[in-house]
Amino acid sequence: MNVLEELKKFREMDIPYSRVLSSMCTVSHEIAIKAHQLFINTNLGDPGIFPGTVELEKRLIEMIGELLHCKTPFGYICSGGTEANIQGIRSARNIKTKNKPNIVIPKTAHFSFEKICDILRIEVRRADVDESYKVEVGEVESLIDENTVAIVGIAGTTELGQIDPIVELSKLAEEKDIPLHIDAAFGGLVIPFMDKPYPFDFINKGVTSITIDPHKMGMATIPAGGIVFRDEKFLKSLEVETPYLTSRMQFTLTGTRPGTGVASAYAVLRALGFSGMREIVKQCLKNTKILVEEMSQLGFEPVIKPVMNVVAFRSENAEDLKSELYRRRWVISTIRNPKAMRFVIMPHVTEEVIKYFISELKEVMK
Amino acid sequence: MNVLEELKKFREMDIPYSRVLSSMCTVSHEIAIKAHQLFINTNLGDPGIFPGTVELEKRLIEMIGELLHCKTPFGYICSGGTEANIQGIRSARNIKTKNKPNIVIPKTAHFSFEKICDILRIEVRRADVDESYKVEVGEVESLIDENTVAIVGIAGTTELGQIDPIVELSKLAEEKDIPLHIDAAFGGLVIPFMDKPYPFDFINKGVTSITIDPHKMGMATIPAGGIVFRDEKFLKSLEVETPYLTSRMQFTLTGTRPGTGVASAYAVLRALGFSGMREIVKQCLKNTKILVEEMSQLGFEPVIKPVMNVVAFRSENAEDLKSELYRRRWVISTIRNPKAMRFVIMPHVTEEVIKYFISELKEVMK
Repeated sequence: MNVLEELKKFREMDIPYSRVLSSMCTVSHEIAIKAHQLFINTNLGDPGIFPGTVELEKRLIEMIGELLHCKTPFGYICSGGTEANIQGIRSARNIKTKNKPNIVIPKTAHFSFEKICDILRIEVRRADVDESYKVEVGEVESLIDENTVAIVGIAGTTELGQIDPIVELSKLAEEKDIPLHIDAAFGGLVIPFMDKPYPFDFINKGVTSITIDPHKMGMATIPAGGIVFRDEKFLKSLEVETPYLTSRMQFTLTGTRPGTGVASAYAVLRALGFSGMREIVKQCLKNTKILVEEMSQLGFEPVIKPVMNVVAFRSENAEDLKSELYRRRWVISTIRNPKAMRFVIMPHVTEEVIKYFISELKEVMK
Repeated sequence: MNVLEELKKFREMDIPYSRVLSSMCTVSHEIAIKAHQLFINTNLGDPGIFPGTVELEKRLIEMIGELLHCKTPFGYICSGGTEANIQGIRSARNIKTKNKPNIVIPKTAHFSFEKICDILRIEVRRADVDESYKVEVGEVESLIDENTVAIVGIAGTTELGQIDPIVELSKLAEEKDIPLHIDAAFGGLVIPFMDKPYPFDFINKGVTSITIDPHKMGMATIPAGGIVFRDEKFLKSLEVETPYLTSRMQFTLTGTRPGTGVASAYAVLRALGFSGMREIVKQCLKNTKILVEEMSQLGFEPVIKPVMNVVAFRSENAEDLKSELYRRRWVISTIRNPKAMRFVIMPHVTEEVIKYFISELKEVMK
């Protein structure tokens, strides 16, 4: 057997996206794949060799800046939301220079903040959420002290797709003069395209950095995360010198860095435009509604009325249902508190996929 | 102009690898590109969805373990050498649990250790090197104290391709009971294929982790770095819990993680075999010799006799020569101490490329 045949065998063991209802990644857009091919050997870690790819990244960041109400954005395309969150918090830590730094995040924050706390040696304080799973701003305030280097708000929580009261968090951040980092890894490319977009971004003066991942709802190829700062000083605080490269300084977390994510993310946003993205988001929200209706007929109620294309349904048997579905090669996920089945209605989760899934779920429930 | 045409214009602004003589990356092997295509939508960050890709990674790590004299390797394919080095040092820091941790590294270590020091909040102590640019083991010993959580040795320094006295460092590490991390990001896929391989790897009992990047001499597609631990406890020390994923724990730095690097790295090693890799390395070393001869005829002497396919030539005008060559779309790099022009003779730097470059250099020197 030749090597490619062997690889195909491994690849066939993977579960196709058409049976995955819980991933925040999706099948890359056709144009993303084509763009990716053109940039497969590029390395943004050595920018002097790739001035064209560097320029493309600059334009992409400007496009993202426009979307996020920031005229002069400073940022880059990275390995994903975790790197983006690390860099957001690291820059705040570096600028605020406290001996025993802490950050205040919502209890609903992504588990990557656990890593960040370990990696950056920062204390993480978790603020409680209200009954709609939005962070309690009063709780955040009470956890802040003189060693707090950042506040985190989430625009599209991983579990429920909820959006924190970022307008209020921003006021608090301004008042206390503490950087406010927004984790919009998922929601950053959903919310701006909704009918009534919640103001989660740089339109709030207190927001200093935003994580926004094109390889999630941006349908770019992996890896394509994004971190954007309002102020250059944050990016500067991450710099180290780079002898023997074509650059002088490097602010990225990684060194070698593919240009594929830049090209594929740019291609999707350029080809679809903001209006095309609106259509995609509209369809995902419509399909989310369809899922809610179908699940309701089976007796499952959502934990909160879906804010975006993420939804969880209460079920005491969530773990068992997940396991049995997985045995049948369907992937959903669960949350623990409250016990629920969790879904992300990405572009590959079509009405057809939902109907097929529901028929399988009925079988499982028998 | 359609989007792909627009992207091509940007890509054409990049400098082709045939004019790049200072990168540790190269044109991916043909089979790497093909393998990459098959795995373009995979995400190892959610392993339950991609059991085939997970299995492939396991086999690749075993293959790398075999190469590095480790029967039961624990590791993974990551974004590159920086992540691998962060994780190597982070695991040592987490296991040794000191209040004010420090690490001892050679002065010749890669600049990523500057980042690591900032990110992980560790003090970095730089040991001097001898006249052949190998770290002084006595210097390393004198910098160690009760707060030292790791020693670093380099197998293939970025500037000169030198290999530290790892046998001696290993003895010291064992004696002091301190983890020894080897940065073989570049040399890891060169040294094992040389005629007389220096014992830089797990054959030394003191070596606890090794960075080895398939996207450098392994001709895999970017991103494909590698980190391998001798002992599972190091990997375990990096774990955080992962609710709402198909896994329970995650030890990687990033979350979402492409399977393309795994597939392309596996494909190259499998298709070429260790014997095919030996041929590639042999050719690179032969071409390095050719460059040394050609440069010698122009009056340039290497800083040290090349150990592998990295070589630097003393020149007071190194910076000016680099700039003028860059103006002519040739990329070399420089080192500062001693002032020198630096070259990496990757597989794309063929005899033809060298001859063409030398003729251009002659023009520049006029």
